[in-house]
Amino acid sequence: MKLAAITINSQHHIGVVQGEKAISLTVLKGNQIPSCLKAFIEKSEELLPLAEQLIGQGANEDAVFPISDVKILPPIQAPEKIICVGLNYIDHCRETGMEPPASPVIFSKYANAIVGHHDAVEIPTNSNEVDFEAELAVVIGKEAKRVTEEEAMDYVFGYTIMNDISARDLQFKDGQWSRGKTADTFAPTGPVIVTKDEAGNPHNLSISLELNGEIMQDSNTSNLIFTIPQIISFLSQSMTLRPGDLIATGTPPGVGMGRDPKVWLKDGDKMSITIENIGTLSNYVKGDIQKEEG
Amino acid sequence: MKLAAITINSQHHIGVVQGEKAISLTVLKGNQIPSCLKAFIEKSEELLPLAEQLIGQGANEDAVFPISDVKILPPIQAPEKIICVGLNYIDHCRETGMEPPASPVIFSKYANAIVGHHDAVEIPTNSNEVDFEAELAVVIGKEAKRVTEEEAMDYVFGYTIMNDISARDLQFKDGQWSRGKTADTFAPTGPVIVTKDEAGNPHNLSISLELNGEIMQDSNTSNLIFTIPQIISFLSQSMTLRPGDLIATGTPPGVGMGRDPKVWLKDGDKMSITIENIGTLSNYVKGDIQKEEG
Repeated sequence: MKLAAITINSQHHIGVVQGEKAISLTVLKGNQIPSCLKAFIEKSEELLPLAEQLIGQGANEDAVFPISDVKILPPIQAPEKIICVGLNYIDHCRETGMEPPASPVIFSKYANAIVGHHDAVEIPTNSNEVDFEAELAVVIGKEAKRVTEEEAMDYVFGYTIMNDISARDLQFKDGQWSRGKTADTFAPTGPVIVTKDEAGNPHNLSISLELNGEIMQDSNTSNLIFTIPQIISFLSQSMTLRPGDLIATGTPPGVGMGRDPKVWLKDGDKMSITIENIGTLSNYVKGDIQKEEG
Repeated sequence: MKLAAITINSQHHIGVVQGEKAISLTVLKGNQIPSCLKAFIEKSEELLPLAEQLIGQGANEDAVFPISDVKILPPIQAPEKIICVGLNYIDHCRETGMEPPASPVIFSKYANAIVGHHDAVEIPTNSNEVDFEAELAVVIGKEAKRVTEEEAMDYVFGYTIMNDISARDLQFKDGQWSRGKTADTFAPTGPVIVTKDEAGNPHNLSISLELNGEIMQDSNTSNLIFTIPQIISFLSQSMTLRPGDLIATGTPPGVGMGRDPKVWLKDGDKMSITIENIGTLSNYVKGDIQKEEG
């Protein structure tokens, strides 16, 4: 099932996306469907079967909307955590000049960074080196603390796409990556969450990023250094993962900083990330923020 | 005004702390007072004057509780951001062997780390080097984006105390500090938020930490390398600060890793941080989690 947070006439709905249609679970069963996907995921043991039943019955026409008529929001607007794994593809380590790590390298974004499909990525006025990173993101489904690798996949709700936008100048000047990674709009996410039963093998999905129509990143999640169960088990040893938490699993080679000459995002650029079985996340770039606002 | 999130008979209240009493604003004016301090702060332009008026009228007896009869919660349970500034006291840089930074060093905790006054700090099963750090924490009162140093203090609601608990082995093994800083229970916070009008000059407050009755840290916020307006302006250049966001301003010298021999927290330890005009935050340490749960 492909789930999306959508607005229809400015009202929040949870939609099931099928091809070019969105079926509103909110219209079908508003009294039982929460208004945000995080709350839906928290109750997913009960609500996923209900959603499947509702969709299986064949939706009334008044619950079906052309995708082009709805606004797609970020699937999770306010996760407790946006956890990012750095340097998790061998070839990406090489292009950054860094050694592949012995254990996952973890850094953070905050919810201020989240935007959705078709939203703008804004170049902060204090950076001249803003870069893109296509990533498969895991959506946690159940509270997880000290889980083993063997049981880790039980805690996965599904998958989405995140563009781990990075201000390289801030990131490397600081040493600690936080500030360069969590500027406003630096975590485009979505457009949908694909439940794990529909995603196929998450360690064998093609992943690519196009910038202005040119393929910049083109790899497969089979190249992950640390697998999803390894990452979940590793994190959960010290922190409790909660429903709706997002874990961005790292980016393959081809980012702007690894190129000669380097490629930095600029006003008007268009990015699209496509991950097999998950979908396509598209965003554009807005520069000159200061000039515009000033 | 000293504000606290409290529970009375398992109900959430917002309390005004005066000496050994807590006056429940929720009892006095429940229909206008939200149940959490973050929501209170979001509406503080309206609610702070109301609270002052209610308290000024002299509270009915049924709104006044001995502090010993209420449970004090973390003032903010789910901030959008817990932003930490590293290496912000010159002498602390020296004891860690690191150079004083040219600009603030920023790292993150997530809300999973937050616990309150008198709560346990749990030693994760994957760390043997858990350390304490007394810090003055700023509570943001209004949305701030690209504010100048001159106007930055307008965006401060008040101050609280944070103990920036740190697993040194995880922190330095990873290079990126996130994982070692955001284990569950690693951000004890509170007990109260002191509004900025009552805190005095935030750059001239004594700050100390006692471990099992022995003074380990003893300094003054006048020794901050980067001041609060500098930090707020710096952060707001790329990220929007929101009401309830917590900014821990760094720790003075005396932490466990800077000692010879090094001092690591262990089961049964008691920590108290006292900051002039702000209060005292006390926590105990719980080890042997695995043994106990297994």
